[in-house]
Formats: sequence, structure tokens, C-alpha cells
Amino acid sequence: MTTNERAPEGDRTLAANEDRLTMPLVEAMETQRAVRKVLPDPVDDDLVLRCIELALKAPTGSNGQNWEFVVVTDRAKKAALAKRYRQAWRIYGGIGRRISKGDGSMNKILDAVQWQVDHFEEIPVLVVPCLKGSRAPFVPVPPMAHSSYYGSIYPSVQNLLLAARSFGLGASLITLPLWSTISARKILGLPVSVQPACIVPLGWPRGRYGPTTRRPVGDVVHRDTWGSQPWK
Amino acid sequence: MTTNERAPEGDRTLAANEDRLTMPLVEAMETQRAVRKVLPDPVDDDLVLRCIELALKAPTGSNGQNWEFVVVTDRAKKAALAKRYRQAWRIYGGIGRRISKGDGSMNKILDAVQWQVDHFEEIPVLVVPCLKGSRAPFVPVPPMAHSSYYGSIYPSVQNLLLAARSFGLGASLITLPLWSTISARKILGLPVSVQPACIVPLGWPRGRYGPTTRRPVGDVVHRDTWGSQPWK
Repeated sequence: MTTNERAPEGDRTLAANEDRLTMPLVEAMETQRAVRKVLPDPVDDDLVLRCIELALKAPTGSNGQNWEFVVVTDRAKKAALAKRYRQAWRIYGGIGRRISKGDGSMNKILDAVQWQVDHFEEIPVLVVPCLKGSRAPFVPVPPMAHSSYYGSIYPSVQNLLLAARSFGLGASLITLPLWSTISARKILGLPVSVQPACIVPLGWPRGRYGPTTRRPVGDVVHRDTWGSQPWK
Repeated sequence: MTTNERAPEGDRTLAANEDRLTMPLVEAMETQRAVRKVLPDPVDDDLVLRCIELALKAPTGSNGQNWEFVVVTDRAKKAALAKRYRQAWRIYGGIGRRISKGDGSMNKILDAVQWQVDHFEEIPVLVVPCLKGSRAPFVPVPPMAHSSYYGSIYPSVQNLLLAARSFGLGASLITLPLWSTISARKILGLPVSVQPACIVPLGWPRGRYGPTTRRPVGDVVHRDTWGSQPWK
């Protein structure tokens, strides 16, 4: 575990953990990773609300702040979402296994997702960030409309994930349980004008945070025009 | 200016500013805001690359890391993007003015955007985060496919914005100059398989960072089902 990681056996209230938000920005970013295996122990509401409060500091298109967050702790609702997650995972997980055959690090990720799928009802908190004002379905719109739309929620999701990381809360970013928007709306009681964007499951970690592996920055940066890669 | 803000007259190299990334996470988030008015002075490549390097720490769907970043400093290319920005702003800026009539804080935002539109060629750096593997255009897909797609780039954009904030670099998140994907691809030499998501203009600020105004967290949080708002 990193130096800033404390065992979850300690005081898990917001008051006892608020100071962890002073983690250096660079440390939070460099040690952020999906932590899917979490304990069933409850997470203090105040901690979840503080993470969402910081999520709200992120930018939105035209400063619309057209976000809402559903915090799911009810077991029946978690089970209903789990059912949808399992349906989608039966298809995508199988594809993943076939593609990643022999790739150890990808298999490790798939194992962790499998754990999450199997234990979804036991995860203490599911945060569902939503956008108000859904686009009309099946109407072609320019790609930028989509990009601006989701660009008004995912910056906030990243703040939520970084805040969770600084508290030492396990978190990940998933969309599969929401594959059927109709079903998700029914489970969460969402009006048709509200679009669930993703789910961030939260819990005290069984796994741990730590550095991730990424391609060198020079490999993904182009100067002025595609293919000009002076830092590669 | 906040305590961590230094005048841009100082040493603007990465070496002299690297330690600013240790800004407490909570301070970076709470003082992040769009800073559109920036100086024409060049920004050290190393600083831009460090911001992008930290952007790469964000999560992507299925850990695909299917991102690329075009760093635009060429004036002709900036002017070509500026032309598209002005075309879109003539329509959307006018609508914005009519809607925000009498709303002082919205008018302040619109003034800052107007400044950005008018001075777009003078902004030293435009970072264009892109996604590889574009969706087929005009084919209806479930909303989750869109969400997962853009959910694989906007968390990284938020890291980029937070890193810029900690360096004291002015930054904002815009999509209007990319309204014509065909035109954007032509300007940046992008293959059709690459989708530009947004633009983050970067420069040393004329404006300043500072706290933003948001609705109280209890107003946007629902417990288990829409409309159940115990923290409101």
C-alpha cells in the first residue's frame, strides 16, 4: 500500500478522514486505479456526500450543472442492477476472455470484474451520476453534441474517483449494469428526461491503490498534425 | 489569487514548477475554474507534456487507453480552428446572450468566451484530446455505447485541467470549434478512425483561479430512488 493508505480498521467517519483530501494532487492521480474488490462494511454517508460535493466542482458545458447523483444502498435495488450487470457480462466478459487469452494483466482485470459482478449486491454504495435533459433517442446528431453532453458529467466522475482515492475508498467506473436504460430508469425511478451515465461502486478496499501502467506520453502526443510525434 | 498562485513573471519551466503538483487535491478541485483570458506568451512544452502525462493516469473503458492528444501551437492551424469557433459562436453566443439577459454571472462567462473567440489564434497552446476507433456515424446505438466512449476521454481531460490548475496555467474545456468533425479532421490531419473530443486551450492567465459557485450537494443527491432527497 502507498504511504498515505491507512487500514480501514480505523475511524471511518468523514471527520476522521477529511484531512486525507490534502493528499498531493500528483499522488492522487498517480495512484488512482480501479479497486473493485471491496468490503461489505457500510460507508459513512458523509464521506460519500463529500466525494459528490467535490465532483460538483468540475466543469459542465455552458456551466449547465445539469447533473444529479443517485446514491444506492438498498439491497433490492443493487440486486436489480446486478441482474443487468450479469446479463451484459455474460456476453462481454466472454469476449474479453477470448481476446485477452494469455495476457496476464488483462486477465487480472477480468478476474476483478468477475468478482465485482459476483458480489455486486454486497458492495455498500453505488453512485449513479446522471444527466438531466436527455437527447432524443435514435435521432442522428453531430458527434459534438454527444461529446458536449457526456463532457458535462465525466469530469465530475473523475473528481469523485480522485476524492474516493484520497479517502482510501475503493472505487471504479462502470457502465455495463446500465446497458438497458429503460431498466435502469425503472430501478432508480428516473424520469425519462434523466439519463444515467455510469456507476461508481464505492467501498472500503480489499484490494489496494498503487501505480498503473501507461504508454509513455510521447507515444500519444502529436504536434500540430497527426503523425508528427517529436517526443516519441 | 489563491495562496498557491504565483505571478507568471517567475521561472516558467517545468523544473521550476514541478513541485506545484503537490497542491492538495481538495485545493486544486475547489479552485478549478475556466480561465479563458490568457497571455500570448509561449508555454513550455515540458509543462504541457507533464499535464498530458497525468491525464493518462485516468481510467478508460476496458482499460483501452485509446486516446491520442494533438498539441497545436501552429498559428495557421489555430486560425483555422478559430474560424470554425467563430461560426458556431455567432449562433450559440447569440442564443446565450438572449437567455442570460440580466444574469450577471452568466454574462461574465459569455464575455470571457467572447474574449477567447476573438483571441483564439493568440492562445499559445490548444490541446485536442482524441479517441481512436470512432463509432459509425448515423447508426443508432444504445446510449451506453456513447457514454462508455466519451467516458474513456473526459476523466483524462479533467486530470489535464486539474494539473493545469496546479501549475497556475489558465485552461478551459470547449467543443464549439470542433462542431464540424470533417473540418477538424482536415485541419489536424486526423484519420477518419480518430474522433476529436474537445479542445483545452492553455496559457498563462490574465484571469485568475478561485472558488466557483455550485448548488448545495444535498440538492443534487437522491437516495436509492429519484426524488428521495434526505440531504436537501
